[in-house]
Amino acid sequence: MGSLPKSIQELNPRLARLCLNIEKFGKQKSGKDFTASTMLVGVSGGIDSTALLIIATLLARKSGGRVFCAHVDHGLRDESAGDGAFVKELCERLNVPVEFLKADVKGYAEEHSIGLEEAGRIIRYDFFSSCLDKFGADFLLLAHHLGDLAEDVVMRLIRGTGWPALAGMDAYDPQRKLLRPLLSTDKRELETFLHAINCPWREDESNTSEAYTRNRIRNNIMPLLNEENPNLGAGLLRLKNQAELDEDFWKDQVTEILSLAEQNDNGIELSCSILNKCHPALRLRIYKKILDDLGPGHALFDSIMNLDQAYSARKSGTTCQFPGNKVVKVRKKGLLFKVN
Amino acid sequence: MGSLPKSIQELNPRLARLCLNIEKFGKQKSGKDFTASTMLVGVSGGIDSTALLIIATLLARKSGGRVFCAHVDHGLRDESAGDGAFVKELCERLNVPVEFLKADVKGYAEEHSIGLEEAGRIIRYDFFSSCLDKFGADFLLLAHHLGDLAEDVVMRLIRGTGWPALAGMDAYDPQRKLLRPLLSTDKRELETFLHAINCPWREDESNTSEAYTRNRIRNNIMPLLNEENPNLGAGLLRLKNQAELDEDFWKDQVTEILSLAEQNDNGIELSCSILNKCHPALRLRIYKKILDDLGPGHALFDSIMNLDQAYSARKSGTTCQFPGNKVVKVRKKGLLFKVN
Repeated sequence: MGSLPKSIQELNPRLARLCLNIEKFGKQKSGKDFTASTMLVGVSGGIDSTALLIIATLLARKSGGRVFCAHVDHGLRDESAGDGAFVKELCERLNVPVEFLKADVKGYAEEHSIGLEEAGRIIRYDFFSSCLDKFGADFLLLAHHLGDLAEDVVMRLIRGTGWPALAGMDAYDPQRKLLRPLLSTDKRELETFLHAINCPWREDESNTSEAYTRNRIRNNIMPLLNEENPNLGAGLLRLKNQAELDEDFWKDQVTEILSLAEQNDNGIELSCSILNKCHPALRLRIYKKILDDLGPGHALFDSIMNLDQAYSARKSGTTCQFPGNKVVKVRKKGLLFKVN
Repeated sequence: MGSLPKSIQELNPRLARLCLNIEKFGKQKSGKDFTASTMLVGVSGGIDSTALLIIATLLARKSGGRVFCAHVDHGLRDESAGDGAFVKELCERLNVPVEFLKADVKGYAEEHSIGLEEAGRIIRYDFFSSCLDKFGADFLLLAHHLGDLAEDVVMRLIRGTGWPALAGMDAYDPQRKLLRPLLSTDKRELETFLHAINCPWREDESNTSEAYTRNRIRNNIMPLLNEENPNLGAGLLRLKNQAELDEDFWKDQVTEILSLAEQNDNGIELSCSILNKCHPALRLRIYKKILDDLGPGHALFDSIMNLDQAYSARKSGTTCQFPGNKVVKVRKKGLLFKVN
């Protein structure tokens, strides 16, 4: 690894603009000057996160922020120790403090009877969360880019996700302090960036394994979609922008109605006088929000539709069951939501 | 072609249920007893429309409706005359009056500088529309099924279509009297139906041609998506149901606001006092509706977003341009929409 650029001024105009566009996007999505704050960057050592760590460091120098790094060795591939060594060296050169975790993903997956991908995700986010606390960081920066967003939309379409979640992962999740500043950036630009500054990265062989749904989507389906429309990413980014507005709109509407609900020992009651004023499109989202808030267990769209049909037909006495022992009783004066 | 069933009672229970489910779906979507009305069925002679014509005839006999048929010879394949002969014989056996059109799709496409697919669609719908008038039909029945819906969603995703149009073609379009009663039916059920009643159909060789986007999606992309989730169709049907509710919701909201707009010689004016009360998710849909109503020319989501940014930043004096010579002027007291 040669010497890395010390400031944005050292970059050629195209690369400098790339960095500033990434800063602009992250600011717009978070509504905050994140590059002037304390940032924790999750780094695997692959193209995307290596580029993100360097770009975050350059932006922090410009804006007065600080950067920390976190790396997880999932212990699933022979090369994973080498990835850790690479990240260690990269952080030394950038003068970025780094925290490492050697995880037993297989053990965790077996213990909790879940898949390797899900186990890895849980372990990773737990570790990132503890690092956020340790470093007192304001943001967790992850390196998902436009191609990842597009893949995610296709994955959610396959899974049968509804609107607005269909439009893919969020650029900003304030609850988890999670920011994805590369989400509007094409991966090829990140590769160009690393080439231009002569910085190596680690290849993740598991990205080519057909055993993972995501890899099959990435390697087999996305190329066909991109062939039909080389600007697919731009279209899906627009879709995401629209989804963010709708998400915010429905949140406002649902919150307003829920402030009128009555919560007592029996559960949560919503009267007909309130529900009748709501369009079915709103009622479904109200039901979903109340059910989600009642605890774990994911209510399917079809069962929520059935509940609204029972409500609309005034089938008093009907009880609709939902996962997590949740029930909704249709009564003369309205709906009662509770956990049994 | 052997003898065809004369009534639903002659069918085995599974096939009878298929017919009744198709009737139920069409009634639910149109809100009307379409099988008791006068139906025009568009028939190519392929599996889907052959099955639809027979099912519509059986349902009409049960419910007291009447069936007419329309067939277009696109003149693009050698077999197309044979397709017409097949449809003629089928209609004779079913005792269904049929109207034929021999179209010059190639000539029309060249004359109007459009693609063959689009030319075919325009000619077909024009012909269907004239047949609707001629027969005094209440519904135009088309044979699009669940697989077509799924393809259409993927096609729209590729094209960058926003919500709720993203969720695919409508089961019912009252303006065109168009009903797609098979839209929740799996194509395999239609094939099973024709096999069981021993009815042949025509294969359309152009369905396998890679020259058409739709065929590439059907033959190359859909199998990969269906492999990831064999219930893909059911998920997309749910998505469509959600989209229909949202579509209806936004229509109500937009209509309410537009009733407050002022239309005069200058164009259509919307005051800040009205717009400020609207969430951006609603404002964008209001802009789109006004622009669409002003005449031909399709406003892109990005330009509509830019307009709202100019409005939100109160950039009075700004003029935003849209296709079809439409302009929107940002003024102190609101927005002015007009055609230049």
